[in-house]
Amino acid sequence: MTQHAQPRLLDPFLAPKSIAIIGLSRSAIGSPVSVHTTLGDMGYEGRIFIVNPGMDSAPNATVCKSIPQLPETVDLAIISVERSSVPETLEACVAKGIKSAIVITQGFADADELGAKLQTQIDEIIARAGIRILGPNTIGLVNSPAKFTSSFIEVTPDDLPVGQVSQSGFLMMGHHLVTNEPAGYCTSVDLGNGCDINLIDVLEHFESEPRIQVIEVHAEALNDGPAFIEAASRISHKKPIVALKAGRTEAGQAAVASHTGAVAGQTRVSDAALRQAGVFQADSAEELRSFSKSLAFFGAMKGKRVAIMSFSGGGAVLAIDALDRAGLELAKLSGKTIETVKRLFPDWMEVENPLDIWIPVAKDLNDAFPLVMNALMQDEGVDAVMCIYCSYNLPKYDRYDASGYIRDLSAADRSKPVVCWSYGQDIEGFTRTIEEKRSAIVYPRLDDAARALAVLARHGERLDSSATKLEAPKADKAASKVAADILAKSGVEGQEYLFTEAFEILEAYGLPLAKWAAIRDESELEGKAGALNAPFCLKIDSPDVVHKSDSGGVALGIAKADLAQAYRDMKGTVASNVPGARLSGVVVQEMAAKGAEVMIGMVRDPSFGPCIVFGTGGVHAEILDDFAFRIAPLTAEDARDMIDETVISKILAGARGQKGADIDALVDVIVKISQIAVAHPDIQEIDLNPVFAGPEGAHLVDARFILSQGEGA
Amino acid sequence: MTQHAQPRLLDPFLAPKSIAIIGLSRSAIGSPVSVHTTLGDMGYEGRIFIVNPGMDSAPNATVCKSIPQLPETVDLAIISVERSSVPETLEACVAKGIKSAIVITQGFADADELGAKLQTQIDEIIARAGIRILGPNTIGLVNSPAKFTSSFIEVTPDDLPVGQVSQSGFLMMGHHLVTNEPAGYCTSVDLGNGCDINLIDVLEHFESEPRIQVIEVHAEALNDGPAFIEAASRISHKKPIVALKAGRTEAGQAAVASHTGAVAGQTRVSDAALRQAGVFQADSAEELRSFSKSLAFFGAMKGKRVAIMSFSGGGAVLAIDALDRAGLELAKLSGKTIETVKRLFPDWMEVENPLDIWIPVAKDLNDAFPLVMNALMQDEGVDAVMCIYCSYNLPKYDRYDASGYIRDLSAADRSKPVVCWSYGQDIEGFTRTIEEKRSAIVYPRLDDAARALAVLARHGERLDSSATKLEAPKADKAASKVAADILAKSGVEGQEYLFTEAFEILEAYGLPLAKWAAIRDESELEGKAGALNAPFCLKIDSPDVVHKSDSGGVALGIAKADLAQAYRDMKGTVASNVPGARLSGVVVQEMAAKGAEVMIGMVRDPSFGPCIVFGTGGVHAEILDDFAFRIAPLTAEDARDMIDETVISKILAGARGQKGADIDALVDVIVKISQIAVAHPDIQEIDLNPVFAGPEGAHLVDARFILSQGEGA
Repeated sequence: MTQHAQPRLLDPFLAPKSIAIIGLSRSAIGSPVSVHTTLGDMGYEGRIFIVNPGMDSAPNATVCKSIPQLPETVDLAIISVERSSVPETLEACVAKGIKSAIVITQGFADADELGAKLQTQIDEIIARAGIRILGPNTIGLVNSPAKFTSSFIEVTPDDLPVGQVSQSGFLMMGHHLVTNEPAGYCTSVDLGNGCDINLIDVLEHFESEPRIQVIEVHAEALNDGPAFIEAASRISHKKPIVALKAGRTEAGQAAVASHTGAVAGQTRVSDAALRQAGVFQADSAEELRSFSKSLAFFGAMKGKRVAIMSFSGGGAVLAIDALDRAGLELAKLSGKTIETVKRLFPDWMEVENPLDIWIPVAKDLNDAFPLVMNALMQDEGVDAVMCIYCSYNLPKYDRYDASGYIRDLSAADRSKPVVCWSYGQDIEGFTRTIEEKRSAIVYPRLDDAARALAVLARHGERLDSSATKLEAPKADKAASKVAADILAKSGVEGQEYLFTEAFEILEAYGLPLAKWAAIRDESELEGKAGALNAPFCLKIDSPDVVHKSDSGGVALGIAKADLAQAYRDMKGTVASNVPGARLSGVVVQEMAAKGAEVMIGMVRDPSFGPCIVFGTGGVHAEILDDFAFRIAPLTAEDARDMIDETVISKILAGARGQKGADIDALVDVIVKISQIAVAHPDIQEIDLNPVFAGPEGAHLVDARFILSQGEGA
Repeated sequence: MTQHAQPRLLDPFLAPKSIAIIGLSRSAIGSPVSVHTTLGDMGYEGRIFIVNPGMDSAPNATVCKSIPQLPETVDLAIISVERSSVPETLEACVAKGIKSAIVITQGFADADELGAKLQTQIDEIIARAGIRILGPNTIGLVNSPAKFTSSFIEVTPDDLPVGQVSQSGFLMMGHHLVTNEPAGYCTSVDLGNGCDINLIDVLEHFESEPRIQVIEVHAEALNDGPAFIEAASRISHKKPIVALKAGRTEAGQAAVASHTGAVAGQTRVSDAALRQAGVFQADSAEELRSFSKSLAFFGAMKGKRVAIMSFSGGGAVLAIDALDRAGLELAKLSGKTIETVKRLFPDWMEVENPLDIWIPVAKDLNDAFPLVMNALMQDEGVDAVMCIYCSYNLPKYDRYDASGYIRDLSAADRSKPVVCWSYGQDIEGFTRTIEEKRSAIVYPRLDDAARALAVLARHGERLDSSATKLEAPKADKAASKVAADILAKSGVEGQEYLFTEAFEILEAYGLPLAKWAAIRDESELEGKAGALNAPFCLKIDSPDVVHKSDSGGVALGIAKADLAQAYRDMKGTVASNVPGARLSGVVVQEMAAKGAEVMIGMVRDPSFGPCIVFGTGGVHAEILDDFAFRIAPLTAEDARDMIDETVISKILAGARGQKGADIDALVDVIVKISQIAVAHPDIQEIDLNPVFAGPEGAHLVDARFILSQGEGA
């Protein structure tokens, strides 16, 4: 292991000089499913102690009857006693001076009430005694450079500079579908229930570890969202992070809760967070591995232009579909490339990308293949080469074996990824040859190759972009003071949601709300409305009416003369629709200048905190489901990016000769809502719908703030 | 081969008793890439003749100097002479009485002008002499039961009851990623350029061939769409059809054109056609194989309820995500199942689907695994079982090897698919065991397993549904006559698009168009508008103004008093915006009752004919891109199904307490547009946008018909 000036939290876990295995049964000696066996298989060179009162001896280990009897204070305890004994075992470790422990045992917060209580006891020991714990409910870790593992299942060591951190042990055990590849990482940590050592601890270890160049994350829940975003944003500018977020669906999230005892956040919020943090998301365990391997082999890709050389015209067509789906481009071959390869093709074939090379290859592979591949590798308009070939590795097919060329020519320029797909009857042998120098990869599917290239291209863009994110502007102090006072008062009064108070807060922040007045009594109507321009809208103000329009509490387009009647009608209608509702009064408001209806909102995610939403508004907003999400705080650039992500942005841009909306004004609203969300954690939810986005600005007409209740604040 | 009473078109191709190989070079003898070699490898038992003036002898074949010198009239000629010699070679075959030929040679319609001309010559020979041809630009076919192939590349024979038909040879060569499986089909036909024998010929052969139970299609272009839909709809009720449509993207379609010389249709139209024909679409070559193998192993699935038994909790969470994405459900386990398996689990574990079986299995796999799997196989609430297990086939892991159980217990009830996914280091060995009885499949990814199950469930639904589609209602004869007369007149006058004539046709068909009158001169205005109710809209009527609103040719909400001025303004504005435009007049029309804006249209696809479109309308229809497509003729059921497919259907259903739109009225419009499209092939395109869909009916306000020009009609 590399020596570090300062010992790191995870060093005793990943490279302990001595370990105590506590809770190993006698039958585990010689069992294939036993950490004692796997440590032997890995060639672990540290001192192994086994604590078991009923065992006398074991090969390559010193057996002790109890923890106090251990002859030395080991670097790491590996605990798999039954769950009720875990707290006392930890206490004994503490007493012995042991500072690090992996708790394999399951049945804690992942299980029943008793388990949750036991986990609380563990938390207390950690807080009191300072022992650091990985788990419980984990198979622990594997660290090939130190020849160390705590897993009871065998893992094939690997030296690929990939660090894996997961919430489930199965990823550690490999998912090697094409060939019997080794693990795919050099270090892997299973967090289990993560009661102490967490995702961020492991990410920061990988950040500081030169052996790790690519980080692979499997997460079911992302707790402490802001800290995750901060760490991942920083690290992903140096070492790419790929993530598989499990429990994406409602059913999946329910299962996650019982699997790790965590509550999985809303998928869209976590998608937004991962994106903001520069993390590349994979769709499956296989894709997670495909992305991390691609990044480990190739690093970044310079652009999006891909050249295809294919033994099959039909395969090339499928490859183009795959590239297009992944957002990549067909490279335009240079005149020089075309000039170089032209002689190989019959006169009647158009020589262009994709190159259907079957005819030249069938004639003489040794003449044709290197000529074409070299030309593509040297073409400056080509950022990556995709090879489609036929894999028959029987000796009689040697004449058609391109694998040696792919291996060698790809290694000549490692800045240009070479991705391969093959059809035929023995893909494994070819794959081994092609990947020998880690300069080309064979993918199971064309879409896998294309999606991996897209990640490499995005990684290239990320490396080019600045690592220091623009600082999001802070909330105006005076506005923040006004809002805080209003919120404090509402809090005292136990209000669940704000309406006119929300209007006041929005105005304090200088947001463009259509002019309004609160009418507590009909006698105020003429005077207050007199200062406003007709036509008006009326909205009921009641702490008991959240959905105003559904209750007859909204009336639009009222002329001055009809105002009093409309006022009386509304009070009557709402009183009859919502019997017993307290009617604080009615808001009279100018009708806003028209524009496209958008919605701007905020939901406070239990893990990531304030998440800003922008999208198509109006009464059908939820059905149209055209929303972009970002975790606050937001810069103007973030807000602009959010708007661009929606379908309605194309309408806002001024489709069909219409004048476009004032995007700057929308950006300003979004950024200020982000400021409000950050400054006032009491506000649980904000809903501005509709906001009219017109050519002359954004016009807010309605607002609903939901306040957090009780201890949640 | 099965004997058929009547010889079938493809019999001499698939099971010839004698063949002549024409154009085989001397170097092909002993070459691995040679039909002479592959025929030997397959064990072909028919008589082989080689026609080559420069060859004296060849093993297992009779060599002739020329076609006339062949000692017998062979069943099939396999031709790979250079392209310019293909026509004369075919003539010689015809002269010899040979009735079937495969033309391997490429460089025809797939290449340059000369190639296209040569293909035309082949067409003429076929038409004149009746010889049947597969190709050109094909590697021909493989038929394992007859031990016959025309492919110059080796294929591993297989007896899986899958018939493959493709437009590219590479699919025939296999794409065997997990294990070195055999071909995956027993019969495969590469259509190449398909100048004679086409997709439908092969589909109908597979229909009549009892050895084929599942049909696998790879298509780059679907020519003769209506015939394809008819054949596929019929066949897919008996034998499931899975298809990979290549060239889905614009770039891919351009490549298809050069690859097979065909023009690929619009992807959305072909997607609609395949769906209507009951064809299951695959996204990749691998998925095509996965679907066909799953259907061959399992047939149909009874429902959508899946039980998961997993060695890993984390794997189970990913499985749930995959099932949800594929539209499947987590089965609710019966009380009996839970009672049976409960004893295996610790008290603190909730026993439910998914079953995390690691603890029982680690204790005693032989006790736990069969008990759980049997219980799930017998649970009537479970339609399929998904097994996630750890695959380590080293002898020391025998205790954890579930593969034998999966193989045997799945075979006990073949009506319940058992799909597997494994993690570990040697998946191949387990896969071979598990799939031995063809009653369980190991999939490379969880999503593959889930997507395959979804296809099995859809196949089950299709088998349950009636094979005889409801007859689409025919157009009303009187209406059709009126429309034909209008169209004939417009055709004579060379009109490119219809406006007021379109209104007349729509009214003839009884469609609910807002009342209107054509005004040729201002003097007519008062009289004609007098019969209509204000407010009005005005629309310019000019053969030179297609996009009326963009040219100032639409004015809305005009009061009676303002009509004359609005009329004059419009004529002026359009005249200045579109200089030289012929102004036939102005249409004055009642404003329609409001409702949601939808669009109903028709485009005539070069392959599939009239394709009906329904979706969100209004000026932003294209941006919102919420459309459903169906090939005409449509039944009311089809129309209803189309509406349901769109996002706007949820708004039409009456969201947020609003009254829903009159769906029957929309269905009627869609069906009548389908009738118009079928009855009048001169109409190339119909665009009704917006149609107002309100609670009291559908209201048409605008219409544009584009006519086909010249020979295209």
